[in-house]
Amino acid sequence: MKISKLVGKREKETPSGATLKSHILMLRAGYIKQVAQGIFSLLPPTQRVSLKVQNIIREEMNRVGGQEVLLPVVMPRELWEMSGRYSSIKNEMVRFKDRAVHDMVLGMTHEEAAVHLAMNNIKSHEQLPFMIYQIQTKFRDEPRSRGGLIRVREFTMKDGYSFHATQEDLDAYYTKVYEAYKRIYKRIGFKKFVVVEGDNGMMGGKVSHEYMAVTPAGEDSLVICENCGYSSNMEVASSIKSENDNTVKGEVTEVFTGNAHTIEEVCAFLETDQLHCAKAVCYEKETDGKLVVVFVRGDQEINEMKLQKIVQSELLPTEVEKFGLFAGNIGCLNLNVPEGSYVLFDKTLQKLENFVTGANKKDFHIKNVSMSRDLPNTEYVDVCLVKPGEKCVSCGHELSHTRGIEIGNIFQLGTRYTKAMGMKINMPDGSEKEPIMGCYGIGVGRAIASIVEEKADDKGIIWPMTIAPWHVHFCPIRIDDENVAAVSEELYKKMEKAGIEVLFDDRNVSAGVKLTDSELMGMPIRVVISPKTMANSQAEVTIRETDEKLFIPINDLISELKMMIEDEINEIEKSL
Amino acid sequence: MKISKLVGKREKETPSGATLKSHILMLRAGYIKQVAQGIFSLLPPTQRVSLKVQNIIREEMNRVGGQEVLLPVVMPRELWEMSGRYSSIKNEMVRFKDRAVHDMVLGMTHEEAAVHLAMNNIKSHEQLPFMIYQIQTKFRDEPRSRGGLIRVREFTMKDGYSFHATQEDLDAYYTKVYEAYKRIYKRIGFKKFVVVEGDNGMMGGKVSHEYMAVTPAGEDSLVICENCGYSSNMEVASSIKSENDNTVKGEVTEVFTGNAHTIEEVCAFLETDQLHCAKAVCYEKETDGKLVVVFVRGDQEINEMKLQKIVQSELLPTEVEKFGLFAGNIGCLNLNVPEGSYVLFDKTLQKLENFVTGANKKDFHIKNVSMSRDLPNTEYVDVCLVKPGEKCVSCGHELSHTRGIEIGNIFQLGTRYTKAMGMKINMPDGSEKEPIMGCYGIGVGRAIASIVEEKADDKGIIWPMTIAPWHVHFCPIRIDDENVAAVSEELYKKMEKAGIEVLFDDRNVSAGVKLTDSELMGMPIRVVISPKTMANSQAEVTIRETDEKLFIPINDLISELKMMIEDEINEIEKSL
Repeated sequence: MKISKLVGKREKETPSGATLKSHILMLRAGYIKQVAQGIFSLLPPTQRVSLKVQNIIREEMNRVGGQEVLLPVVMPRELWEMSGRYSSIKNEMVRFKDRAVHDMVLGMTHEEAAVHLAMNNIKSHEQLPFMIYQIQTKFRDEPRSRGGLIRVREFTMKDGYSFHATQEDLDAYYTKVYEAYKRIYKRIGFKKFVVVEGDNGMMGGKVSHEYMAVTPAGEDSLVICENCGYSSNMEVASSIKSENDNTVKGEVTEVFTGNAHTIEEVCAFLETDQLHCAKAVCYEKETDGKLVVVFVRGDQEINEMKLQKIVQSELLPTEVEKFGLFAGNIGCLNLNVPEGSYVLFDKTLQKLENFVTGANKKDFHIKNVSMSRDLPNTEYVDVCLVKPGEKCVSCGHELSHTRGIEIGNIFQLGTRYTKAMGMKINMPDGSEKEPIMGCYGIGVGRAIASIVEEKADDKGIIWPMTIAPWHVHFCPIRIDDENVAAVSEELYKKMEKAGIEVLFDDRNVSAGVKLTDSELMGMPIRVVISPKTMANSQAEVTIRETDEKLFIPINDLISELKMMIEDEINEIEKSL
Repeated sequence: MKISKLVGKREKETPSGATLKSHILMLRAGYIKQVAQGIFSLLPPTQRVSLKVQNIIREEMNRVGGQEVLLPVVMPRELWEMSGRYSSIKNEMVRFKDRAVHDMVLGMTHEEAAVHLAMNNIKSHEQLPFMIYQIQTKFRDEPRSRGGLIRVREFTMKDGYSFHATQEDLDAYYTKVYEAYKRIYKRIGFKKFVVVEGDNGMMGGKVSHEYMAVTPAGEDSLVICENCGYSSNMEVASSIKSENDNTVKGEVTEVFTGNAHTIEEVCAFLETDQLHCAKAVCYEKETDGKLVVVFVRGDQEINEMKLQKIVQSELLPTEVEKFGLFAGNIGCLNLNVPEGSYVLFDKTLQKLENFVTGANKKDFHIKNVSMSRDLPNTEYVDVCLVKPGEKCVSCGHELSHTRGIEIGNIFQLGTRYTKAMGMKINMPDGSEKEPIMGCYGIGVGRAIASIVEEKADDKGIIWPMTIAPWHVHFCPIRIDDENVAAVSEELYKKMEKAGIEVLFDDRNVSAGVKLTDSELMGMPIRVVISPKTMANSQAEVTIRETDEKLFIPINDLISELKMMIEDEINEIEKSL
């Protein structure tokens, strides 16, 4: 490709409104153009990257027996009524009436369509397991699209759906896809990604995993153990908390604490520390307005995601007075709450002795409370956030906190959709059974933006060889020189003939412009020739990622480049 | 691929509601599944075909310098307001409001988005010409979706848009794409397709061409000259009409014709023939209600498409009495029509002498009218349909009438969109100019269905080698025989290893079921082994299209199959 004809221009300035590195660089390098909020056109280099990423995904899905299909973007209401999601999904899903006044939706996911395709086409357990997948445009009316391709409304997604006769079969297949996903991200070029468990909690949640690109630009908080590899989304992370001095010191005693209501004020007033307090955090359930009181150690914070799962409801702030409680003086002894309220004790209280808590009486707290003595049969739950400095539950090593972008997820769906839609298969014993499903998603654009986040430097994008729009950015300097022009044209043709994908900067512009553009655009290898290098019959080859420079005889250039490209791709293949 | 795991089942019965061959066969063979009116899911074999067709299109677009991009499916109203099409396109275009209550549309074509992408990214004439294209899902709310993938509402389409500084440059590039399209259809495997000129008519219409798969299942009427290759859509076709005896015979004479009003009745009454009559056909313009009177020779029929272009309006039937005329007695001499009416004379009247026409008086006609004598300064237009038996305007050979499916079109758009959206490029002389555009479309699904229409026989589909889901359908008979099973599994592995795409019928079912399924599904080569063929160390190889059978030693099978596949693909390449 000659850059003089490439559709897209390079910009020096940071575009207004863009804050994420990938968003800024992809705009500046002429890779994307915004059409509306969260809706982008992809310029030619990005589409080249996208096709390569799609091919990697396709190869890995085919390797685990996936069968590629194409499900519709526009679907009739009836299909979504069958699963109950027509009403349960709110306005992220686009709805419209077609010319025959039928209600239609734009697919934001395709569980219903996948079951619709499979049912009647698959009747016997012998045909299971199978997985169908597609790579296709989806539209999700995100309220908070942001950051270029990181969070958009329209996107290209690979979504796959597997069907199984038994849970064991799903488990085995799920593990295969789990590994296939790791191969995909490695092949795309991710060095920093982790897999975190999703909602696999105590409340009968289903098995799921999220693949996270680790980057400060991420929206998700992650907890990672660099020793044993434990990694978790903050929403569900656990840790070993610091312990405190846990000896019983004396009798329960009521003390006046007056206007001291916050944990800091109470500790200061009573000259104790937060490790020796049980504080109350209160909410109201969104579903039925019931009170939720959670007691945690004074230094801890509530993980509302965990709590919501326990009480099976969204949580709202509340005014405790309407439940007969005194804000700032709520305690775990002698607590009176309305029937149907939740009263929960976090695990951090499990061994707590000699602590302070509210007296459930205006302006008073009590001290010297002991869990084992005063509340002996308490059940504990895990509802705390993991805090800096805490230890890994697997190996005891100190945990790191970081951020991540979700670049994929896999999920055991169970029979939710096959039951709802009435898909049944014949089992060996003659009975009928709803197949058990797994589903598997990857957003192509988000993966592309995330790899830019991971690898880019101050000068621009750095593409991994496996997905780079072109392998080589060829910058002849002083192309107005007849000799340079002739050799450039010849080398360009030779590279193309040798199967080297090359972006040829054929413009008659300064070396500065060419080199700056090449750094911004991020091809893995840059080749420069100029009157000076040609005087030594050499080309200057620069590795974009390391800035390493090599001088290679022009006669060896093509074979050397081919080897460099193959070596880099082979290295990734070997690491799988 | 093992057929036991393939998602999709084969059916013997013709599905209710399907009438087109491709629709019936693709349903019966487990290739497509309807989700809603005009909306289909593609099962795995069809998606394999689709990817191959897409790759052929992609290669040919890249060969003429096309740059692949991706434009959005969902676009904001503002973009379509710029071209004026937000209001001019009616309810084929889906509209909805997003969660922020912005008006959005589903793209049914992407001229606006293409200009939006190109403008600002391209500023100089030196960057022209260029073509951007995409392969993407579109939704068009067709009122008359029908025939499986032939006419759907949601479809995968390649659409391309080129930009040029001069008309000469567009003409030259257009010719390249014209040829690229021919290569595409040949590579897909079409033997019977023609290119017809679109609306390039006298009224300043633009240059365009339609690629038509010739098939009785087509919706378009075509006129073809098998001698010189002239081909045209009936809507715009011309022909040489039969001539008649054209000598002046006498004075204009009024004759009573009473209740004889139709051309047949008048000819019978006056004992003359239709070749010696000028009949009037009347319409009312949809735009302003004005009268349109067209005179044609009695044996001819009006081509309303041609007529609409001339009067620049849709046409409605009319009651001529309200314009002061007498139905059945309208004639071309002494005609009084309201001001603003159109009175047109078809070319078939150009040399007409001695003919009958209405007297513009109730119950009377006149005879012995002569165009040259009585209406000497008449201008003629071409508004007739081409009729069976008429001759080619290029070579005089008799024309054939047939039907076609439009499988692609190319179009010179001019500056309609660049002007409306304000895209300008700097010209060498320092001036600014709107680029001139071409646009180029192919529907992938329709091409697939059309090739099925062209090639299928009574037994099922016949895929061309270049786009077949698999090259080989491998049917071992008596797979319950240990020896057959072992050899089958080994051959299957060898074929896959050799890069032969193979669908392996690994089911333990009868020979009849296997062979019938293979004929229905349509892979170009079928390989059968059975205890009988194995006794001779042979495999039976059948060419689906010709039913030719070969017995090949099993030891040579892989190399022979590879050669057969390559030969067939090379033959197509050579024909380009």
